[in-house]
Amino acid sequence: MTDHPTSPNPTAVPATTARPNPAGVRRLAVLTSGGDAPGMNAAIRAVVRTGTQQGIEMIGVRRGFSGLHRGELVVMGARDVANIIQRGGTILLTARSRTWRTPEGRARGAQVLRDWGVDGLIVIGGDGSFHGGHYLQEEHGIPVIGIPGTIDNDLYGTDHTIGYFTAVETALDAVDKLRDTGASHERIFVIEVMGRHAGHIALDVAVAGGAEEVFIPEDHKPVAGVVEIVKDSVAKGKRGSIIIVAEGYEGGAQGVADAIEAGTGLETRVSILGHIQRGGSPVSSDRILASRLGEAAVYALMEGRKGVMVGRGASGVIYTPLHETWEKRKDVSRDLYRCAMTLSI
Amino acid sequence: MTDHPTSPNPTAVPATTARPNPAGVRRLAVLTSGGDAPGMNAAIRAVVRTGTQQGIEMIGVRRGFSGLHRGELVVMGARDVANIIQRGGTILLTARSRTWRTPEGRARGAQVLRDWGVDGLIVIGGDGSFHGGHYLQEEHGIPVIGIPGTIDNDLYGTDHTIGYFTAVETALDAVDKLRDTGASHERIFVIEVMGRHAGHIALDVAVAGGAEEVFIPEDHKPVAGVVEIVKDSVAKGKRGSIIIVAEGYEGGAQGVADAIEAGTGLETRVSILGHIQRGGSPVSSDRILASRLGEAAVYALMEGRKGVMVGRGASGVIYTPLHETWEKRKDVSRDLYRCAMTLSI
Amino acid sequence: MTDHPTSPNPTAVPATTARPNPAGVRRLAVLTSGGDAPGMNAAIRAVVRTGTQQGIEMIGVRRGFSGLHRGELVVMGARDVANIIQRGGTILLTARSRTWRTPEGRARGAQVLRDWGVDGLIVIGGDGSFHGGHYLQEEHGIPVIGIPGTIDNDLYGTDHTIGYFTAVETALDAVDKLRDTGASHERIFVIEVMGRHAGHIALDVAVAGGAEEVFIPEDHKPVAGVVEIVKDSVAKGKRGSIIIVAEGYEGGAQGVADAIEAGTGLETRVSILGHIQRGGSPVSSDRILASRLGEAAVYALMEGRKGVMVGRGASGVIYTPLHETWEKRKDVSRDLYRCAMTLSI
Amino acid sequence: MTDHPTSPNPTAVPATTARPNPAGVRRLAVLTSGGDAPGMNAAIRAVVRTGTQQGIEMIGVRRGFSGLHRGELVVMGARDVANIIQRGGTILLTARSRTWRTPEGRARGAQVLRDWGVDGLIVIGGDGSFHGGHYLQEEHGIPVIGIPGTIDNDLYGTDHTIGYFTAVETALDAVDKLRDTGASHERIFVIEVMGRHAGHIALDVAVAGGAEEVFIPEDHKPVAGVVEIVKDSVAKGKRGSIIIVAEGYEGGAQGVADAIEAGTGLETRVSILGHIQRGGSPVSSDRILASRLGEAAVYALMEGRKGVMVGRGASGVIYTPLHETWEKRKDVSRDLYRCAMTLSI
Repeated sequence: MTDHPTSPNPTAVPATTARPNPAGVRRLAVLTSGGDAPGMNAAIRAVVRTGTQQGIEMIGVRRGFSGLHRGELVVMGARDVANIIQRGGTILLTARSRTWRTPEGRARGAQVLRDWGVDGLIVIGGDGSFHGGHYLQEEHGIPVIGIPGTIDNDLYGTDHTIGYFTAVETALDAVDKLRDTGASHERIFVIEVMGRHAGHIALDVAVAGGAEEVFIPEDHKPVAGVVEIVKDSVAKGKRGSIIIVAEGYEGGAQGVADAIEAGTGLETRVSILGHIQRGGSPVSSDRILASRLGEAAVYALMEGRKGVMVGRGASGVIYTPLHETWEKRKDVSRDLYRCAMTLSI
Repeated sequence: MTDHPTSPNPTAVPATTARPNPAGVRRLAVLTSGGDAPGMNAAIRAVVRTGTQQGIEMIGVRRGFSGLHRGELVVMGARDVANIIQRGGTILLTARSRTWRTPEGRARGAQVLRDWGVDGLIVIGGDGSFHGGHYLQEEHGIPVIGIPGTIDNDLYGTDHTIGYFTAVETALDAVDKLRDTGASHERIFVIEVMGRHAGHIALDVAVAGGAEEVFIPEDHKPVAGVVEIVKDSVAKGKRGSIIIVAEGYEGGAQGVADAIEAGTGLETRVSILGHIQRGGSPVSSDRILASRLGEAAVYALMEGRKGVMVGRGASGVIYTPLHETWEKRKDVSRDLYRCAMTLSI
Repeated sequence: MTDHPTSPNPTAVPATTARPNPAGVRRLAVLTSGGDAPGMNAAIRAVVRTGTQQGIEMIGVRRGFSGLHRGELVVMGARDVANIIQRGGTILLTARSRTWRTPEGRARGAQVLRDWGVDGLIVIGGDGSFHGGHYLQEEHGIPVIGIPGTIDNDLYGTDHTIGYFTAVETALDAVDKLRDTGASHERIFVIEVMGRHAGHIALDVAVAGGAEEVFIPEDHKPVAGVVEIVKDSVAKGKRGSIIIVAEGYEGGAQGVADAIEAGTGLETRVSILGHIQRGGSPVSSDRILASRLGEAAVYALMEGRKGVMVGRGASGVIYTPLHETWEKRKDVSRDLYRCAMTLSI
Repeated sequence: MTDHPTSPNPTAVPATTARPNPAGVRRLAVLTSGGDAPGMNAAIRAVVRTGTQQGIEMIGVRRGFSGLHRGELVVMGARDVANIIQRGGTILLTARSRTWRTPEGRARGAQVLRDWGVDGLIVIGGDGSFHGGHYLQEEHGIPVIGIPGTIDNDLYGTDHTIGYFTAVETALDAVDKLRDTGASHERIFVIEVMGRHAGHIALDVAVAGGAEEVFIPEDHKPVAGVVEIVKDSVAKGKRGSIIIVAEGYEGGAQGVADAIEAGTGLETRVSILGHIQRGGSPVSSDRILASRLGEAAVYALMEGRKGVMVGRGASGVIYTPLHETWEKRKDVSRDLYRCAMTLSI
């Protein structure tokens, strides 16, 4: 990266397969915002390389919206994103910005983008970040495209979000390890996975981890029922039980464990997986999704789209107005939920 | 597992959420066949537990069709499939059977199933295995349902096959490791991944591994082009290159490496990943797919379906006649192919 | 496993390379006790196979001392320990027994061993388990050999304990993941690893994880010092800090995090890794150590040794009286501690 | 890194715990050479940070001896080695240099070091690299210290070499995966691991992987014997066999597989693991060893030592004349070999 805004970009190779550019895009900026997610680097790489390949000068903004209004921008070429596709975290850094929530903050950010001659901004993040991008476009007319980067998979408008697959895999790896101990000691493990408002991670981990029970925020299942399940499980001769709880379920893992101990007299162990679910080298599904959506985000701006999130649907890339991504709700799969219960016998 | 065919099944729990059973299914058999794939055990577990939960007696056949005509059958209950969801390979074992290709062999197998009072057979495997199931049903009227279990992802009628995600992940892990060495020595690695007739694994690994080039059987790209790509890559200052080749591409990895050495004078290293791609604990996506399709296969037989493969489509579980799974062709994604090339600059 | 105590053992192969057996050992029992540790299965396998190969009949005791006084014994042959070397947990199960702490409980256990004609007992576990074995031998004359199986590495008489290497690797993997997030958000992570009385895991993880600071129970370093370190770290431009705390350090990770927040005003994140450190497939070093010590334990009983733990020292296998393993203290390496501090600049 | 040789080094912090520096060292250079090994980056980090902490200016040489005689040197500070401890490969790059084998080449390299005012050179690599360092010191009087960085573990003067533990773990992971397939198909896998002249990797992998047989270069075991072992294994009811072969064993894995097929008529599968064993994030043992030896190498030069390799022995860091590291032989452990055979029944 070089820090000079007006330098010619030596790495913008001639666009061999140039796409139509009716919007006349010549410079684009990209930032990561909110909680980091594995695959954000793969998305940055895809954005920078696609732009470069189309002859567009690419600018990276460091520290999200916080860095944007402070002017932390750098020109990026194809080599600046070499060897990052496999890395967790985000080389552009991320932050949560209070200033951005004020009109003054956003005005400063918009001015920075105008000073740099930027024709559009790509925001990689979750719904909080899309709010930030939405208001920037509404108030200052700068075209914004969102790329769904969050482990929670709770955005309407895409079948999956970048980082989700890796988070599930990390949580599953922990469940497999805890099962070893649970089975050896014939113990009950109550494991809390991420998901403040959504049970996507919890449900996938429950099915893939062969859990006896799962508690998610979408469901108003009373914790009392788990007592019968555990008793039944012991009666069937199961050695050790695995109960998965999304952090957003009322009472969390500790509440569920307390109910089990009170109702059965059996000892439980609580494990709260926490931030490890955010890190690590992204699995292939996250890298591929990030590559596809990173490419699509640049093409979208070239085509004149704005104020939308690029996502993946059944038929390929789809576009959803930013505000719908948080206004509409993506449900967990009821079929998968039933499947989890069927197979836990 | 117990070996007695006529024993009552003590683990068939009363079906709390009984599904309609118009086909009047009371006993079902399941086998794994052909090359093993990670997630086969998760599929066996799902089949056995779903059946048991529906009050159906479940029978496991060992060593695929080979064990079927020799009568290697065992009753299986819910506990017999405990603690296997995370294991590679198949607890039912698998084999390739020459005898099954003869009408006499299939007649013997059909007689075994009739002797055991089996109302339907679930075959977990790839197209060769589905051939075996197809003829069994055609010739002897035994309902057969296929579950796609193969790392190659080359079956029409399902977005993915069980084992595919794990194979991609294993190959990608190897690519990440080779990149360390490739970058340190500024060397060209030509890596051969599985896929005799299909480039699905190769393409996913190429995108996720950030490869410079990919060669797949579906494509008739001349190997000569790679010479220009490698030269160009060196000129751009890339440190080390990764070239992915599907085993079915003419000449394989060695052929591509020879062309590069002849055309550029640069040293290359060939790595043929081979059978490690078949093994290992299945990743979450394979376990979930196996759980869903295993459940669906039992329901399908209860509903009177036969001669079809259960697969996953955009809308959920779909059913495809067995013969279409090998007659029709599942293409690799052209969009993904273009994406791979865009991002390799 | 078969449950009949007097059956001939068909799997006791003729000892091709028979070792001297002055103690005239003909039957041996083995159990796992206390907290489980990765590699316990590899140790069970080594014990059973070495005994079998020497023509000794091998007996497995389930659920540790608890199962011993209740008579949960099974004959084990070479095939009964096939395919377990790579598995976490313990196939013999483990438990903590209150009854065993009473003379009556131990008398019952001793009678069970005499009824089964057992000539010696191998105890795989930590210091609590060795206490149990020590009193059994003292009170009832049954030869006991200990194998160090605990993730804490806190036993005198062996350079490492079985399970330790895997626990360090699991904790390190978590630290690597947290570093991704820590660096992206420029945040301070305070990570608690296992070690109630010993800082071995914490120190290894700190060095290997490139931590800024480490707090262990052996050290009476005031937590206040960490405030300066963190301030200094920020001043140097470090992006994110990793602080490792052993669970036995007063106040734990939460105490350290509170001190940092109070002293610097910076936000911290606490991560308590917990039981995942006990599980998972053992790494090679644990499997090799378990194999060597399992073999050595059987030879030790054949040679007439008793009341000792087999351990690994610089010169190979060494023998330490059981009571010394908990009476004497194994220090953490001061050189390594200094190294950790040198490299955290 | 900055490229200017005469710049003051702003990152050389005041040495808070200054060590005696009788040799008056003020500037040191470090390079990596020969085949890369996981942990080389951890060693570079340790060297640079220890030197910096002692007030010594540190210089990195890129591309090994090849870059040395071409003058590819850069000043390195503590921050330049941040976030590399967990990375495979070597940020300093490595190469094999023909020019260095000539007196003229070495003379040029010596002149470069003198021009930069370097007081000593640290060489991270294997025996070929130590040859290069040895002659540089002999002919030009520049103090050289070696750090053992090679996956083969074949250097006399250290219990283990940096990279060895990771290579074993990578090979073991592959063996675990192949075992899944081997057991499912009841097949024989013959697996070739690295080790052209030494069987260290092969032996560790055989013990940890529960292999049936192992072939190493140190041993002149006729391949014919394996036929009996495989027959015996089948007779015992083993499902699938694992045979480990070091690449340096005459005939390699293919030779062993051919002998088995000819002698038993059974089908085998050959897997040559190859370069993946060189890559990947280093395991904890390699990072710790690299950290300790990197620190020790700087102290050694400060104390006036030269022409030696720093290694780890039973008592801590030991020093061995460079030429002894290749002249003397480090045997594989005979006890471990016997153990492997005992446990393969």
